[in-house]
Amino acid sequence: MATQRLNEQAEGVFIISATPFAADGSLDLQSTDRLIEFYLEQGVSGITVLGMMGEAHKLAADESAAFLTRVLQRVADRVPVVVGVSNAGLDNLFSLAHTAMSAGAAGVMVAPATGLGTEAKLLAYFRQVFEGLGESVPVCYQDYPFVTRSEISVATFNQLVTDYPQLVMLKHEEWPGLSKLSAVRKAARDGLRRVAVLVGNGGLYLPQELARGADGAMTGFAYPEMLVEVVRLWRQGEQDRAEDLFDAYLPLVRHEQQPGVGLALRKEVLRRRGAIATAQVRAPGPQLTATDHDELTRLISRVEKNLEAM
Amino acid sequence: MATQRLNEQAEGVFIISATPFAADGSLDLQSTDRLIEFYLEQGVSGITVLGMMGEAHKLAADESAAFLTRVLQRVADRVPVVVGVSNAGLDNLFSLAHTAMSAGAAGVMVAPATGLGTEAKLLAYFRQVFEGLGESVPVCYQDYPFVTRSEISVATFNQLVTDYPQLVMLKHEEWPGLSKLSAVRKAARDGLRRVAVLVGNGGLYLPQELARGADGAMTGFAYPEMLVEVVRLWRQGEQDRAEDLFDAYLPLVRHEQQPGVGLALRKEVLRRRGAIATAQVRAPGPQLTATDHDELTRLISRVEKNLEAM
Amino acid sequence: MATQRLNEQAEGVFIISATPFAADGSLDLQSTDRLIEFYLEQGVSGITVLGMMGEAHKLAADESAAFLTRVLQRVADRVPVVVGVSNAGLDNLFSLAHTAMSAGAAGVMVAPATGLGTEAKLLAYFRQVFEGLGESVPVCYQDYPFVTRSEISVATFNQLVTDYPQLVMLKHEEWPGLSKLSAVRKAARDGLRRVAVLVGNGGLYLPQELARGADGAMTGFAYPEMLVEVVRLWRQGEQDRAEDLFDAYLPLVRHEQQPGVGLALRKEVLRRRGAIATAQVRAPGPQLTATDHDELTRLISRVEKNLEAM
Amino acid sequence: MATQRLNEQAEGVFIISATPFAADGSLDLQSTDRLIEFYLEQGVSGITVLGMMGEAHKLAADESAAFLTRVLQRVADRVPVVVGVSNAGLDNLFSLAHTAMSAGAAGVMVAPATGLGTEAKLLAYFRQVFEGLGESVPVCYQDYPFVTRSEISVATFNQLVTDYPQLVMLKHEEWPGLSKLSAVRKAARDGLRRVAVLVGNGGLYLPQELARGADGAMTGFAYPEMLVEVVRLWRQGEQDRAEDLFDAYLPLVRHEQQPGVGLALRKEVLRRRGAIATAQVRAPGPQLTATDHDELTRLISRVEKNLEAM
Repeated sequence: MATQRLNEQAEGVFIISATPFAADGSLDLQSTDRLIEFYLEQGVSGITVLGMMGEAHKLAADESAAFLTRVLQRVADRVPVVVGVSNAGLDNLFSLAHTAMSAGAAGVMVAPATGLGTEAKLLAYFRQVFEGLGESVPVCYQDYPFVTRSEISVATFNQLVTDYPQLVMLKHEEWPGLSKLSAVRKAARDGLRRVAVLVGNGGLYLPQELARGADGAMTGFAYPEMLVEVVRLWRQGEQDRAEDLFDAYLPLVRHEQQPGVGLALRKEVLRRRGAIATAQVRAPGPQLTATDHDELTRLISRVEKNLEAM
Repeated sequence: MATQRLNEQAEGVFIISATPFAADGSLDLQSTDRLIEFYLEQGVSGITVLGMMGEAHKLAADESAAFLTRVLQRVADRVPVVVGVSNAGLDNLFSLAHTAMSAGAAGVMVAPATGLGTEAKLLAYFRQVFEGLGESVPVCYQDYPFVTRSEISVATFNQLVTDYPQLVMLKHEEWPGLSKLSAVRKAARDGLRRVAVLVGNGGLYLPQELARGADGAMTGFAYPEMLVEVVRLWRQGEQDRAEDLFDAYLPLVRHEQQPGVGLALRKEVLRRRGAIATAQVRAPGPQLTATDHDELTRLISRVEKNLEAM
Repeated sequence: MATQRLNEQAEGVFIISATPFAADGSLDLQSTDRLIEFYLEQGVSGITVLGMMGEAHKLAADESAAFLTRVLQRVADRVPVVVGVSNAGLDNLFSLAHTAMSAGAAGVMVAPATGLGTEAKLLAYFRQVFEGLGESVPVCYQDYPFVTRSEISVATFNQLVTDYPQLVMLKHEEWPGLSKLSAVRKAARDGLRRVAVLVGNGGLYLPQELARGADGAMTGFAYPEMLVEVVRLWRQGEQDRAEDLFDAYLPLVRHEQQPGVGLALRKEVLRRRGAIATAQVRAPGPQLTATDHDELTRLISRVEKNLEAM
Repeated sequence: MATQRLNEQAEGVFIISATPFAADGSLDLQSTDRLIEFYLEQGVSGITVLGMMGEAHKLAADESAAFLTRVLQRVADRVPVVVGVSNAGLDNLFSLAHTAMSAGAAGVMVAPATGLGTEAKLLAYFRQVFEGLGESVPVCYQDYPFVTRSEISVATFNQLVTDYPQLVMLKHEEWPGLSKLSAVRKAARDGLRRVAVLVGNGGLYLPQELARGADGAMTGFAYPEMLVEVVRLWRQGEQDRAEDLFDAYLPLVRHEQQPGVGLALRKEVLRRRGAIATAQVRAPGPQLTATDHDELTRLISRVEKNLEAM
């Protein structure tokens, strides 16, 4: 298969795909097809599957494989697909990565193991990861210490960039992280190989991050078209229009960015938009109340009103 | 002194006061006067001092006393003043509380000790607190597990409301916390004594929280007049206008709400607005870069543009 | 299959089984047989597999199944086998549990999901677990907040005992936890159904815990015969002899109880004793240095000297 | 005052002093005198005050000053006194350090601020600390990530040793930390300035740590004479006798090393030995039950029996 490979030129929006379930909790592969088409119609540049917001850790091994296969078949190389392979054991991580790459993935995303208390430990961990994966597997580093409790300094990240050419992307998701992003970009201006930087956190700081040198977003906001258009406008020099559009959605971005319940809200929006059949989140997970639904309805209608006024 | 006492009817905006420092790092009491007048001019209903964002833990004991005295003298009973008294030792907590109340404070704010792993421990801790303070000291419970790592369920909070009449206010600052707020209000509808609920987190979810029954905000956003007006409009039934105004500021609310650097940004806005002489934050603490300043300038100008368009 | 069912009368030593690997890192099923026979020869009352110290989270799904099957075949109902089924997703947890029970396990062990901040959340989580498993699956509650960051009070544990007859055992592993154990036992004296309590933490406080009402240990110390004999002596009233024997091993118990490196030390002792072929720990994991080996050798020889002097 | 200065040649046992309280909870300065004489009679090489186990964070500012003055007067330069000055604010830290040094302290002990997630942050923090203190103030680095949640790698610690001559001592208290200690000592063999290393954690691994190059202990075990004698024997080449003596006390060392309740047990032993008037621990803090007392009595009597048998 002539697969796209993830590289440092990646940009735009890599959507973090939800994983759709049927009402009985089983994997919903028909919704998977629909969801992928939905994402592609919104103009995403890439798709990331089996991430944290994809409930990867709640899938059985055969479900992960089935979902991954279905997504790759459906995408059929229209855009690159990145696969989250973080795992408590390195053997499992390597095995998932090789399965994904063989099936046509463009690269893998790896977050550090939980609670690596020093950068020395973090560096040692990623040396094992990169050496085990080998140079042929492009890697996106997921920097999400809010969940992993493993924090990396810019100096240590730069060391990894220097040592491992297969490290081609940073998923920038430390919070707060604006100054970190500036420091990563300064290193590239000072001569370090420039990697792609896509931002996470639901896109909550997207305009500020684009201004500081991000290449786009890798996140799962349920209106991917906004992310796509904000990045496009920004990159063609229309910062004010980009930020106006972003701000029109900001109340909803902020709402969906709540930890935990945010995933249920996101899936509910995708359901309302017809992208998936149910908003089902696997247990243990949040359930929306009637108040949550009404609140979401109001927020969506306000966004629509904002858009009309633009 | 005929002092106001904090009670369950509190509402509106209790501003979390910054603590102003001079360029040499010493306490700036002249700026303190100016800042208090600034807050009062914006229409706040109360003032909270020596909170986490007031850098209370970086003040020497004599500095805390000097600052508290100055604030109470300046306010002169125009609005109630709440004093943060959380401390690693209960003797210190009680001592600070009695000093504050003798000097004219309206009540005290207490967060749980750090890392109380069970609600049983949390309940035991607050029983000691309430019994040590006595019934004459009105208490605001600061529910901020992001920092304290001590989380309380609604059932346990309700137990404290039942057992201790001096518990008159909840500073609602769990994140995410919308469903918790609804549950607290449901308890009051079901017959529990109704305490005041003021929300924190920089006001990031203020409209949603007002809709779910909050009485206002207790936070330190550098444009208190927005918080004041949003609460006022909401309470007189103009929810859409309230939310429109809120949304005009939301990009800045979100920006200032970043942990750590947010305090430096907030003090810089207060400085630009003439409320304090320097934006100095005590070490260890964040310093703003030129990029940070430019970004803030852009965000402020966009808010101003939004306001003009309203 | 006429399987033993775990119940409240369990006592003695349920050894936490290591998972043996070959030098190339693959599952070593021949060593598995040897290790199981080794444990049984030391007189253990039960065997617990796929626990945290069994590196369960580093096994692929097919490896877990192969290991579990091999152990159950080898044990062949000579003692009850408990299977760790904790998982980030409840569907996976239920699936593993039913696989294990169908294959002849005596019960399952479940630790709470990570970071449940309130007992209300913990209670809700376990209600889902118990209801999903059903009454026919005996459960051991693993209380290990050092790793799970989910702490349970005695009152909440007692609530679970009251509500779910299938909760038959507590793996007592909070640290420190002596007063908690006393409180659990007091509840049984006051009329609550008495569940089995087996202690963890490498057995570091075993004599004190037996004195407070523990029924034995569920831990993986590499000299199970000591644990077995200490429990036996204690229960027949020879507390001093039990504690003398325990103290002879205490320097090694304390050494093996170190987080992280302790597992590598434990597997190395098992290797030296001929119970497994290699001391291999799956990556990411600790490696022993020459100094570590010498230190271990000295500690073992001192234990042997202590035993000779008894 | 011709004061001793802490330097790299420090060795033996620096006892972490308890802070004695009267039954009414006030500071007990008479017991302070008695306790200091008790420690000196046991042969300690130094005394550390206002550490975490000294309940420093529960003292009012004037109490800290009064206690410190009393200890320094009583010690009267017989041994060096190290003062814990860790504080959330650097101004407070510097102020306490200068007060202590002016009053005759030999040096100060500093732990990193809480939750410094990267070594880059940790290095930046300590650069501020060392530059603010100046070269004339000898510093002991307290490496206790179990409490501070700030972990330092050996490379970063070595960097501090290289850059700051006033860093003369490591309080080695990471757990587990044996390989870290070996790495610190290897650096000194490879040419780095050799600093004193005293171990904490109640001395739980003292013999192993001496074998790996520790110079003694800095901890508060209630039988300081054991620590003193173990270090003395070890350093004169009698490792077996040293370890025999250590092992005789190990059941009690392990018992007192429990977090939280350990401090109450330690103060109770000191009370029973006549060193302080009450075992009072300031709230919030643990209270011993009758069972706790009996258990402690049994453990002490077993240690005494062990000593008789030697």
